[in-house]
Amino acid sequence: MGIIGRFLEDFAVGQTFRSGRVRIDKERIKTFAAEFDQQPFHLDEEAARGTFFHGLAASGWHTAALTMRLLVESDLKPAGGIVGVGFDELRWPRPIRPGDESPLESEVLEVRPPKSRPQQGLIKVRTTALNQNGEAVQVLVANLMVPRRSNNTP
Amino acid sequence: MGIIGRFLEDFAVGQTFRSGRVRIDKERIKTFAAEFDQQPFHLDEEAARGTFFHGLAASGWHTAALTMRLLVESDLKPAGGIVGVGFDELRWPRPIRPGDESPLESEVLEVRPPKSRPQQGLIKVRTTALNQNGEAVQVLVANLMVPRRSNNTP
Repeated sequence: MGIIGRFLEDFAVGQTFRSGRVRIDKERIKTFAAEFDQQPFHLDEEAARGTFFHGLAASGWHTAALTMRLLVESDLKPAGGIVGVGFDELRWPRPIRPGDESPLESEVLEVRPPKSRPQQGLIKVRTTALNQNGEAVQVLVANLMVPRRSNNTP
Repeated sequence: MGIIGRFLEDFAVGQTFRSGRVRIDKERIKTFAAEFDQQPFHLDEEAARGTFFHGLAASGWHTAALTMRLLVESDLKPAGGIVGVGFDELRWPRPIRPGDESPLESEVLEVRPPKSRPQQGLIKVRTTALNQNGEAVQVLVANLMVPRRSNNTP
């Protein structure tokens, strides 16, 4: 029931995918930071005011983790799941603020046929997270492992 | 009362920093995945067995977030906090398993004097997370913004 997922052969350069959106919650910004990124600009509005961020901002790792949730739920759906072997780029051009809504735009930049392992290849995907003003708040270029449709290669 | 932190002038290529360690908890692997990365290989031992990972593995974002916690607590301590403007590299050479202990080794690769903003510069730091066998499970090359000591430049 539902789609099994896309195999390497189903991906092509230039394909785009759009995700749903998630609202970045102020209290979750603080609890995430308390567990993983205890710095004043992620923990407390008052303390954040005097910092580089000029106000409370989400940890970049919180944003990256939320991005993963949206990516998993999106139509990208590589067969075998979203398995990142690494990233070529990960940056946050603007602070992510409480209440920001974050839909994603993903584009396939490269489809690489299998090298050492004949049963899988790689796709390179750029995913941009936007705030409600349409400004990029996170850019992620990921290399994902994707199985081939035909698994009977020797 | 503790150290204020290191300014750009205090960093030099080749400096190394070691962090404390954190044990990756099996239940937290699953709850983190339930919130941010709902894929079978991060959620359930049984389901994970038949996947690429051959067993439960932590979400890469969970590991990255734990790395941030250790980095913040480490002696790296840039004045103004750990503010990443972006990453040149982020990869996970091996799955991170429940019970893995993860100390970090960080090395300063580059110190870049200020360009557009005279009051700050960038340092490039490679941070490697190791499992208890001394194998790299995550490699992260980050560009961090660091303030200069002298703030009275026009």
